[in-house]
Amino acid sequence: MTGNLNERAQELYHGIRELPIVSPHGHCDPAWFATDAPFSNPAELLVVPDHYVYRMLFSQGIPLSDLGVGSAGANADPREVFRIFASHWNLFLGTPSRIWISYVLRETLGIKHDLSAEVADMVYEQIAEKLAQSDFRPRALFDRFKIDVLATTDPALDPLRHHQAIRACTWSGRVVPTFRPDGVLDGSDPEFQQNLSTLEALTNCDLSSYSGYLSALRARRQFFIAMGATATDHGIEVLHTEWLGEPDALYQKLRNGEGSLEEAQRFYGHMLIEMAQMSVEDGLTMQIHAGSKRNTNHSILREFGRDKGADIPIAQDWVRGLDTLLNRVGNMPDLRIVLFTLDEATYARELAPMAGHWPCLRIGPPWWFHDSPAGIARFFDQVVETAGYFNLAGFNDDTRAFFSIPARHDLWRRGVATHLAEQVSRGYFGLDDAEYLASLLSVGLARQVYGLDN
Amino acid sequence: MTGNLNERAQELYHGIRELPIVSPHGHCDPAWFATDAPFSNPAELLVVPDHYVYRMLFSQGIPLSDLGVGSAGANADPREVFRIFASHWNLFLGTPSRIWISYVLRETLGIKHDLSAEVADMVYEQIAEKLAQSDFRPRALFDRFKIDVLATTDPALDPLRHHQAIRACTWSGRVVPTFRPDGVLDGSDPEFQQNLSTLEALTNCDLSSYSGYLSALRARRQFFIAMGATATDHGIEVLHTEWLGEPDALYQKLRNGEGSLEEAQRFYGHMLIEMAQMSVEDGLTMQIHAGSKRNTNHSILREFGRDKGADIPIAQDWVRGLDTLLNRVGNMPDLRIVLFTLDEATYARELAPMAGHWPCLRIGPPWWFHDSPAGIARFFDQVVETAGYFNLAGFNDDTRAFFSIPARHDLWRRGVATHLAEQVSRGYFGLDDAEYLASLLSVGLARQVYGLDN
Amino acid sequence: MTGNLNERAQELYHGIRELPIVSPHGHCDPAWFATDAPFSNPAELLVVPDHYVYRMLFSQGIPLSDLGVGSAGANADPREVFRIFASHWNLFLGTPSRIWISYVLRETLGIKHDLSAEVADMVYEQIAEKLAQSDFRPRALFDRFKIDVLATTDPALDPLRHHQAIRACTWSGRVVPTFRPDGVLDGSDPEFQQNLSTLEALTNCDLSSYSGYLSALRARRQFFIAMGATATDHGIEVLHTEWLGEPDALYQKLRNGEGSLEEAQRFYGHMLIEMAQMSVEDGLTMQIHAGSKRNTNHSILREFGRDKGADIPIAQDWVRGLDTLLNRVGNMPDLRIVLFTLDEATYARELAPMAGHWPCLRIGPPWWFHDSPAGIARFFDQVVETAGYFNLAGFNDDTRAFFSIPARHDLWRRGVATHLAEQVSRGYFGLDDAEYLASLLSVGLARQVYGLDN
Repeated sequence: MTGNLNERAQELYHGIRELPIVSPHGHCDPAWFATDAPFSNPAELLVVPDHYVYRMLFSQGIPLSDLGVGSAGANADPREVFRIFASHWNLFLGTPSRIWISYVLRETLGIKHDLSAEVADMVYEQIAEKLAQSDFRPRALFDRFKIDVLATTDPALDPLRHHQAIRACTWSGRVVPTFRPDGVLDGSDPEFQQNLSTLEALTNCDLSSYSGYLSALRARRQFFIAMGATATDHGIEVLHTEWLGEPDALYQKLRNGEGSLEEAQRFYGHMLIEMAQMSVEDGLTMQIHAGSKRNTNHSILREFGRDKGADIPIAQDWVRGLDTLLNRVGNMPDLRIVLFTLDEATYARELAPMAGHWPCLRIGPPWWFHDSPAGIARFFDQVVETAGYFNLAGFNDDTRAFFSIPARHDLWRRGVATHLAEQVSRGYFGLDDAEYLASLLSVGLARQVYGLDN
Repeated sequence: MTGNLNERAQELYHGIRELPIVSPHGHCDPAWFATDAPFSNPAELLVVPDHYVYRMLFSQGIPLSDLGVGSAGANADPREVFRIFASHWNLFLGTPSRIWISYVLRETLGIKHDLSAEVADMVYEQIAEKLAQSDFRPRALFDRFKIDVLATTDPALDPLRHHQAIRACTWSGRVVPTFRPDGVLDGSDPEFQQNLSTLEALTNCDLSSYSGYLSALRARRQFFIAMGATATDHGIEVLHTEWLGEPDALYQKLRNGEGSLEEAQRFYGHMLIEMAQMSVEDGLTMQIHAGSKRNTNHSILREFGRDKGADIPIAQDWVRGLDTLLNRVGNMPDLRIVLFTLDEATYARELAPMAGHWPCLRIGPPWWFHDSPAGIARFFDQVVETAGYFNLAGFNDDTRAFFSIPARHDLWRRGVATHLAEQVSRGYFGLDDAEYLASLLSVGLARQVYGLDN
Repeated sequence: MTGNLNERAQELYHGIRELPIVSPHGHCDPAWFATDAPFSNPAELLVVPDHYVYRMLFSQGIPLSDLGVGSAGANADPREVFRIFASHWNLFLGTPSRIWISYVLRETLGIKHDLSAEVADMVYEQIAEKLAQSDFRPRALFDRFKIDVLATTDPALDPLRHHQAIRACTWSGRVVPTFRPDGVLDGSDPEFQQNLSTLEALTNCDLSSYSGYLSALRARRQFFIAMGATATDHGIEVLHTEWLGEPDALYQKLRNGEGSLEEAQRFYGHMLIEMAQMSVEDGLTMQIHAGSKRNTNHSILREFGRDKGADIPIAQDWVRGLDTLLNRVGNMPDLRIVLFTLDEATYARELAPMAGHWPCLRIGPPWWFHDSPAGIARFFDQVVETAGYFNLAGFNDDTRAFFSIPARHDLWRRGVATHLAEQVSRGYFGLDDAEYLASLLSVGLARQVYGLDN
């Protein structure tokens, strides 16, 4: 019976494993595809940019500077960095990082050895050799990975030069930007005033008035759309939305650097609604990633900068947090808002009931720490019964580790197959429906929700 | 081994599947059994009254008015409503609605086809034909469903005419009311003053004093008891209990329509304790359903009315919320309070430890969105180890969809059998104990906790 | 396939079942080992001191006084107490208490009967007979249980006479104290002033100044270290840490009994950081058990005293609660802080991400209600993918029921084996790694984290 279950999961998996990759949200650097320069070295590839990796090593007492992270790590020898990583490979037992990296080493890089202190230097050489080959350049890998479309995440003020270069060149890979306006919406950002000046310069709008500010934001969205964007993205610690009667007053205060933190948060809560309203106008899918408390380790922030593995999830209240926004635009049938949570307690309690009601809402896949086999199983277990499958947004790899993209989609597809095989074995639906849902969860829903249909 | 597990689950299920149905909490209309009029049409039976169904269709952009919901939907053609439903049958893949409705179609209505756009009209005809037959009238089905007793939920001011008619007639089915006093306890209800006037008229008590108000409430409880009631019910957004030193003052304020929202909440928190104390006197089992934020979609509320699929769960604090109530009456050995949560994070953290201590507490079955296969599995997984089985309240179908009652009890019994088979296979107890517990969870505990013993 | 899974779990279990017991946190009475007096009677052994047991009986209406609990129960006949317990054995179906006690009866006491009203007196006699034998005295059992080291939990002011006696005698068993300073840190404790006087007397420090107070605390820690302690412990309802600019002022206020509850909490939040800093100096592993609301049943507290089964978990915010402490000492590579939660929603959301970043943090095993088969499964499911295995603290039995220690370690080891067998069957790692991790989770991590290496 379980034999049958495993066989059925395998069957379902084989039906989807070779599907193209649709990657509607992630953090790859568009420069890779614009310049097609080779990746530098194994440490830069697998350790230095991967906060999943260096956070675990740091948690066991290894200084970030020894791992080549930040300016403090600028002089670290990449061979030595790789040696430390390989020697501590057992720390990753049971984590998705080990599954992803094993996949990359085996499938993409053709390495035959398990990592260990003994083989560290040899494996380093083998990878370095590959990276020097032309078929390990970004564009070649993009094609080999069968990536249909890849979205990057780009600040609202980004001139998108790399995206322009990609569009201008002969290479046919589809790489699109995503509009991330946090820097021009968050009045508590120390660079807010500077960002507004840049926004003014870029758009030729008059930012002395709130309506000019809105026009400038609309203009940037149009620029992103012209460069291929189909979505926006917001990263928020504690979700809050409200509709200000007179947003101009608060706008002026924040523009002059005179607003309090609380005022900045209220203004951002208002602007989220404005952004949703602009999405109604221009059709960009809106993404909200909420509930990560950023940079909780202050000395790491000071020495090594932002996003260095000390971002920790906190509890989230989606119901009250989105209330005002949803009651302004939530019933618009063409609006799409994708919600991402790090608080799994909200899967069954809040997100599934909300997405099972509001026409605009879709639930994003397990995010960050929860993009893992058990995390994916909990996600399906807790959302499907209330939200169904058609209120989900398919998969996002959400990675800055380009090499890991096939590994992450593969892990998701295995999770999809396991989940659907269990549903079939419980008698909820037949194999035909399971095959249809497997394909939908692998690529179809992502295409639909992000407007990336072929 | 898993083969054995499945066989054992099947065995346990077969031992309980034919047990009579005890339904101690639900929302059936007593008029059905008083008048025994035929059900009108397939759309009115399966779509229009089922918020699980139309919420899902609405979440995918189908207007509620097209589904015959509310006054806006009054002119919808039931055939067209059923067609929309049947054409979107795949939206329900993976949801309990699909399991329940499949069961109703197959087992109760004898439909041989799976729903789809193609067969919609044909299935509509087949169902309509059945509904016209005498053995598909409410009383005949009640008997065919082997319902031992069915509790409805009735406002405190309801004259219970239908219940009186049922008791007066020759039909032997046991249908009992449940005392739901929210309208006369909640000072923030716009109809509170009007409700107090009605209460005064119904009871001949003098409501100018708080003690008269208490007497009137006692009188209504006695009236419900005389009509067969064994329980009360409260629906609360955020649980709060407190004991007011001078409740009269607040009572007068609210009675005169002068209290604030906060004062109304404090008064309700006090009245919950009064209600518990009355339960100590009169033996009515008290039910508390807490944690649903009601009618979160304001335009749906305005256009279509209350309870239209936009009620969303929020986090709940049972420990602090019930503290004052429990410290007044919680040690009374004959009091029964059944707690229902939509916040599964409280199963293991709060409800199981509380029910495993306080003599009066019992944990209600998975409620609403969680009355589903995975929801039932999580419930057992998270409450049994701390609360045991004897602090549970068995099953409630909690439905207004009369036809789905056997389907819901069947789904619960399958879940019970699966859970107990797993416990046996883990070696926690033997098959004899499992059979005993299976029967207890299916009917015995509900009978005991609600005083519905034969 | 599942056959293989079960066989593999059995294999892994057999590889660890006979490993010695390392018990780094618990509540055994050191007097047992100092005096080696026989245990008194079966009721005193299995019912009266076990709050898991009498809470469940109480929840079903049995008065605590009938169970021999507290001064109100002082005259209860132990035979009658045992009879009540045996007659209600079915209440424990599905609970870990039943697994533990069955193990104790079968494995340790050699009882062949299942408990029931019928055999109660006979089993009582059989147990009583064993307890009178010399090989059922505390030291003999300690050796027979293969306990390598056992930590007790002792107030900061405890003279540790029993520990001194154990060290002084010829018996080679290793029993060590744990420094629990709540009584001298918590200014809201009614005995705080008295405790400070005792602290002054014990240490000869001048407690009129804050610096004298710190010296006295350091002195007590040194005394505990001299008696073998390797750890401290804190029990906290709602976690809060802050660094006071001028702790002296608040200290003086609380010392004079003039501080408010809020001031006492702020002071405790400051002292937690001082304690962490002292751990950096002296190497004691710090334990924080947070989130239990104590003694929620006031009449039980009045009649029967503290810790009588009415402690109920509440939601916890580890991220904000530990923020100030971690930003002062969290990056110290040699500091060890072990976190214990009763709010499982924080496993994946907070504790695993935090332990996967901060070098000082380790996650304690499932605590209290969650030290159970399903609780252990949820723990591994929710923490390992983010924290890995090496940021866990192994197992704590945390019990005052000495006889249950082997049962609890056995239950944990079975849970470890089941978890690891599943990981192997999913292909995450091979059997060699699983065997290595099994041993680490059973004894190795506890030894490392608590500095109890052989």
